[in-house]
Amino acid sequence: MLKLGVIGYGYWGPNVVRNFASQPDCRVVTICDTNPKAVAQALRHHPAVHATSNPDEVMRSSEIDAVAVVTPVSTHYDLAKKALENGKHVFVEKPFTATSAQAEELIELADRKNLQIMVDHTFLFNGAVRKIKELVDAGVLGPLYYYDSTRVNLGLFQHDVNVIWDLAPHDLSIIDYLIGLEPELVVATGGAHLNGLADMAYITLHFPKNIIAHLNVNWLSPVKVRTTLVGGQRKMLVWNDLEPSEKVKVYDKGIQVTDNHDESRQRLKALVEAKVFEVGAAQAVHDLLVSYRSGDMWSPQVDQTEALQLEARYFLDCLASGEKPVNDGRAGLRVVKMLEAADQSLKHRREIVYASSRGPDRPGYSEVPPIKFAL
Amino acid sequence: MLKLGVIGYGYWGPNVVRNFASQPDCRVVTICDTNPKAVAQALRHHPAVHATSNPDEVMRSSEIDAVAVVTPVSTHYDLAKKALENGKHVFVEKPFTATSAQAEELIELADRKNLQIMVDHTFLFNGAVRKIKELVDAGVLGPLYYYDSTRVNLGLFQHDVNVIWDLAPHDLSIIDYLIGLEPELVVATGGAHLNGLADMAYITLHFPKNIIAHLNVNWLSPVKVRTTLVGGQRKMLVWNDLEPSEKVKVYDKGIQVTDNHDESRQRLKALVEAKVFEVGAAQAVHDLLVSYRSGDMWSPQVDQTEALQLEARYFLDCLASGEKPVNDGRAGLRVVKMLEAADQSLKHRREIVYASSRGPDRPGYSEVPPIKFAL
Amino acid sequence: MLKLGVIGYGYWGPNVVRNFASQPDCRVVTICDTNPKAVAQALRHHPAVHATSNPDEVMRSSEIDAVAVVTPVSTHYDLAKKALENGKHVFVEKPFTATSAQAEELIELADRKNLQIMVDHTFLFNGAVRKIKELVDAGVLGPLYYYDSTRVNLGLFQHDVNVIWDLAPHDLSIIDYLIGLEPELVVATGGAHLNGLADMAYITLHFPKNIIAHLNVNWLSPVKVRTTLVGGQRKMLVWNDLEPSEKVKVYDKGIQVTDNHDESRQRLKALVEAKVFEVGAAQAVHDLLVSYRSGDMWSPQVDQTEALQLEARYFLDCLASGEKPVNDGRAGLRVVKMLEAADQSLKHRREIVYASSRGPDRPGYSEVPPIKFAL
Amino acid sequence: MLKLGVIGYGYWGPNVVRNFASQPDCRVVTICDTNPKAVAQALRHHPAVHATSNPDEVMRSSEIDAVAVVTPVSTHYDLAKKALENGKHVFVEKPFTATSAQAEELIELADRKNLQIMVDHTFLFNGAVRKIKELVDAGVLGPLYYYDSTRVNLGLFQHDVNVIWDLAPHDLSIIDYLIGLEPELVVATGGAHLNGLADMAYITLHFPKNIIAHLNVNWLSPVKVRTTLVGGQRKMLVWNDLEPSEKVKVYDKGIQVTDNHDESRQRLKALVEAKVFEVGAAQAVHDLLVSYRSGDMWSPQVDQTEALQLEARYFLDCLASGEKPVNDGRAGLRVVKMLEAADQSLKHRREIVYASSRGPDRPGYSEVPPIKFAL
Repeated sequence: MLKLGVIGYGYWGPNVVRNFASQPDCRVVTICDTNPKAVAQALRHHPAVHATSNPDEVMRSSEIDAVAVVTPVSTHYDLAKKALENGKHVFVEKPFTATSAQAEELIELADRKNLQIMVDHTFLFNGAVRKIKELVDAGVLGPLYYYDSTRVNLGLFQHDVNVIWDLAPHDLSIIDYLIGLEPELVVATGGAHLNGLADMAYITLHFPKNIIAHLNVNWLSPVKVRTTLVGGQRKMLVWNDLEPSEKVKVYDKGIQVTDNHDESRQRLKALVEAKVFEVGAAQAVHDLLVSYRSGDMWSPQVDQTEALQLEARYFLDCLASGEKPVNDGRAGLRVVKMLEAADQSLKHRREIVYASSRGPDRPGYSEVPPIKFAL
Repeated sequence: MLKLGVIGYGYWGPNVVRNFASQPDCRVVTICDTNPKAVAQALRHHPAVHATSNPDEVMRSSEIDAVAVVTPVSTHYDLAKKALENGKHVFVEKPFTATSAQAEELIELADRKNLQIMVDHTFLFNGAVRKIKELVDAGVLGPLYYYDSTRVNLGLFQHDVNVIWDLAPHDLSIIDYLIGLEPELVVATGGAHLNGLADMAYITLHFPKNIIAHLNVNWLSPVKVRTTLVGGQRKMLVWNDLEPSEKVKVYDKGIQVTDNHDESRQRLKALVEAKVFEVGAAQAVHDLLVSYRSGDMWSPQVDQTEALQLEARYFLDCLASGEKPVNDGRAGLRVVKMLEAADQSLKHRREIVYASSRGPDRPGYSEVPPIKFAL
Repeated sequence: MLKLGVIGYGYWGPNVVRNFASQPDCRVVTICDTNPKAVAQALRHHPAVHATSNPDEVMRSSEIDAVAVVTPVSTHYDLAKKALENGKHVFVEKPFTATSAQAEELIELADRKNLQIMVDHTFLFNGAVRKIKELVDAGVLGPLYYYDSTRVNLGLFQHDVNVIWDLAPHDLSIIDYLIGLEPELVVATGGAHLNGLADMAYITLHFPKNIIAHLNVNWLSPVKVRTTLVGGQRKMLVWNDLEPSEKVKVYDKGIQVTDNHDESRQRLKALVEAKVFEVGAAQAVHDLLVSYRSGDMWSPQVDQTEALQLEARYFLDCLASGEKPVNDGRAGLRVVKMLEAADQSLKHRREIVYASSRGPDRPGYSEVPPIKFAL
Repeated sequence: MLKLGVIGYGYWGPNVVRNFASQPDCRVVTICDTNPKAVAQALRHHPAVHATSNPDEVMRSSEIDAVAVVTPVSTHYDLAKKALENGKHVFVEKPFTATSAQAEELIELADRKNLQIMVDHTFLFNGAVRKIKELVDAGVLGPLYYYDSTRVNLGLFQHDVNVIWDLAPHDLSIIDYLIGLEPELVVATGGAHLNGLADMAYITLHFPKNIIAHLNVNWLSPVKVRTTLVGGQRKMLVWNDLEPSEKVKVYDKGIQVTDNHDESRQRLKALVEAKVFEVGAAQAVHDLLVSYRSGDMWSPQVDQTEALQLEARYFLDCLASGEKPVNDGRAGLRVVKMLEAADQSLKHRREIVYASSRGPDRPGYSEVPPIKFAL
């Protein structure tokens, strides 16, 4: 029977408590929040649990084996450190920490004290992600080409982090799990329109083996979108997390380029250089090069079990077996490093020269007249 | 009565011929393609038109007033130059030229000879784009925040250009028309998986007035997507060009940040620095800062007239009046410059340091085991 | 402060309790269910409420002012009758009763004892339905033409009623509210494939003023659909209750037939009788007759407040003011009468003669060969 | 080489001519339309074909082997009869004739003269329908339960037929092909709001083997819908003809009722009669009875070849081989008989007694006040 203390009972904390409390071999002993209203609500939902506004009651309790840290990211390091120092395993909200240095220190501390850290990368336990992992590992998609995610909606504006730290950890943890590689290059662009924090961002990650990932995260979208394309040499899939039923669609589609590639491209190049503008000739050579494949689509049934319930189960299993979880501190660190790299790239706008061609005849913004028709 | 010669009768040429031929004050006199099959097809469709495989018959004809160049981009410069030198107005396929130097030379030549150039930025004549232009110009959206377009599908692989030159000109010409500004910064990332040409790319353009544009173009998508978000301070819209009927949806949605912004952020910062992890307190301050507005959605009726028909009309009107078209050579040049900048950025991958955290305990690609459950 | 007793704590009962309990002027005093597990659950959720398996504790309690009957329909009459006889107001699940005779008796009893009955026609309090009512009453749609609803999904098979009594009460209560008329004619068809109860049914209701309603209810559909078209002379709307955001779309579309209708039809008839098969001539006359109008679409913001919360509020307000609720016993009776008429029609399949043309050359089921191509 | 004459060159005729003309063993010799504009257009499209406004030139030509009748339905009988009398095979637009008596006479005439009739049931050659036929015949769906089609849009109002004769022949010909049985019962309801002809109709067909079909056809819908559900014991499918790519989706979903059905229903009935209103008990028994199955969805690739091209090919093959086409005159007759039965049912509104419960306290149409909230 694992005895758990939970710190933070705001938006996500109640879910953490509920899912751990429903495990037969776990008991939530203490819930802590510095907000008295949250303490009162915790008591209303869980009359049998001790609730407090003093985190030290959790840290110092000899009864508690593990601490779940479900607070804003800026506090993760202090709380997790204190928990580890007091000999407690840690389950910590994503992103793991505010800096990679903090993450490394916590990992080292946990290793030294032989304690476990699990970062709440909830999406790894989502039925659709587990199905995609299964398809990737089984080679159904073939070697991966890309992961391209759009995760946009109106707000919720965070008070202490930009849109990257708010929305990107989901995809970065999934990418880390699916691709199993660290990026070689991270490029981020974005904009800030309201309060100085980036409210939209576009992140590209280049991985070894010519795999590319792209994330479109945006707090200023009029519509909510949660769509990810995953392309491989053999098949490609679309994961739409907002679909109530057919969340993952696998397409038997692809493009193949023939082997006599170099030769054919030589012929194409010759055509181009000879300034033969004839469409048909170039097309004919091109058709030798490229063939399209378009077969059935298949939407596998996806397990609808609440992800956090499986994750709570997995945390308990890992503590019992001593096995390191896939979403351990190192996984958390890798996600934080990608976030840091994106932040850094966003700050140092790379200078691609674009020399304005605007002259005296070029009017400024919103002075381009609409086209008028004499119809 | 304008007499037109058309060079290139491949994929798009027949549409150009059909739309110019249907104008009452225009006659298509000659169609030219170096491919004999295309010549035969031209004759079948338009028995009354002269068809030839020799472009000089178009260039040297004293009867012809204007030439439409509907060939691969690598040939635009030579053909347009020869047409201008022979005193003919030019209607040329997008992108205008293969380099900005070529574009500048053609613009200068046309100006000198008092001839018109129109670049076939067809989408400016699309009913949805015209409606969006109308909404932007009328201030319905308020000051613009962003333009974010996804234009992906499976193929069609081009033989002589990468995906940027194939798919991005559409959005770049629209952006040029809607925003009316030239970008300060262009950043592009992307990947090449088949034949050495980029087959997916992500382009960010930073404009003055804090406007940002982003383009996601991809030849390796299992599904076709043509969706654009346009966000403004007052309203935001979604343009889905694949919707048969409700192509443009205008959302009365937005986020406002209160004026006492700096003060509130100070209080927030104080909370964060005091390591008060209490969710409620931070949320309360935050709620003072940000307010969401969510009203009706409205989908205006969009004119379904074929865009190319309106553009042909506009070309004839501009020749008649001597007025410079909005999509003149300079507009074509601006698009080519953006394409060049994107290409350049794609080539010089900006080096964002990402120091691998992989150690001996970190397995490589596809060796991350799937999570197993003892359920 | 109204004191409420709730009988039945299965699928819907917890929602009734929660919504009444959250009203400031209402207290849920007793929850009753004959299933001990339900009693235990009620206690867990609401430790302060008395829970029992004996309905008489509710009926005879002098403390209780009103009883909510949230049990299977076959028990409504007995429970509601006992509650009324004990001087308690009644809130009863839909459909009101199993027969119209039962409904009439309860209405008479309540009137005699000066007590209120409210039937839980929850959808009247749904934001989309309230918006549609508003549009209809304001004349936005013009005189109504039709209400056409598709309400299909896989199961849930009911144990004691067919698909009509399970799914149709929703639409029938909405129709009763929107149209405000009683039908002149009810025709139902359907099929039973599993356990002898109709599992799919098609119900047509003819109302005065040439208004027609149609319901497609089906327990054997692989997909869930909740879509309703409402057509009027001026505008038409689509209500898709599964859409997360744009539930109601109002189309400025319509068809008008010109006034010189009879004359034109005479000319058409003459053409037909003269056996003039010429398409163009008939079309020309026809075009004089009919004109189509196609304008903008507009999706009004719809209140997302939980319908049952508003309904609980309304029940309390009606008890306080003595005003008869719109969804009173008579509304419940009208819905039951439509259900009875549909059942009756379903049973007495109307005999439309269809004389089989099957001869010796006509093979039976699944012996029609597929068409083969020599391609 | 079959020589074809085509009568009628309005909306559909050009497609018939184009598809027959593209067959290598067929030549379109003559096109006839009484409208001079149509004759002129035929000449423009097909300069090598003889065009005339006199149908006798087709009927009496000794060169012509077969006649395609592509005119309004009221003229089919006369034209087809004359063609058969002149020894010509007939390809005739759907619906075959205006009455079943006409159809029977033509079938008898063709049989006597050893000539072929093919009715243009184009949808039998649609890729989606061919795929569904394949799935049904292979037993993938198991024994059929139902076919439920929604075919609605705004207009096009026909000048000489109601919405049933305009839109229902599509589904009726598909049903005839897929189910291979003739209905035992046809019930139709509907309404007429504009010019006296039914503009919306709901048709139910009961077939042997407990198969039911339902058609919702409507000219007054603000949105276009072309969706059909086909349910079987083992699987169910959705065919959405407006989807650009995934037109057919097969769901591995179903409901099974256990064998000890009668016994369990006895227990349920006992519970109900004992007026045990306990939800849990009834549910428990019910759960023994019914089990749901919910597996993957699969969207097979569907051939996109133009249906009319395959049908033209099939017509030529049948003439060459002497084999009777699946869509012969008898198939046409069966569809006409179903249309006639639907018309007859629509006319004789079955009288389901619905005694109005309206009393003095029941206001009329649009006098039901909207619910008001004191919120």
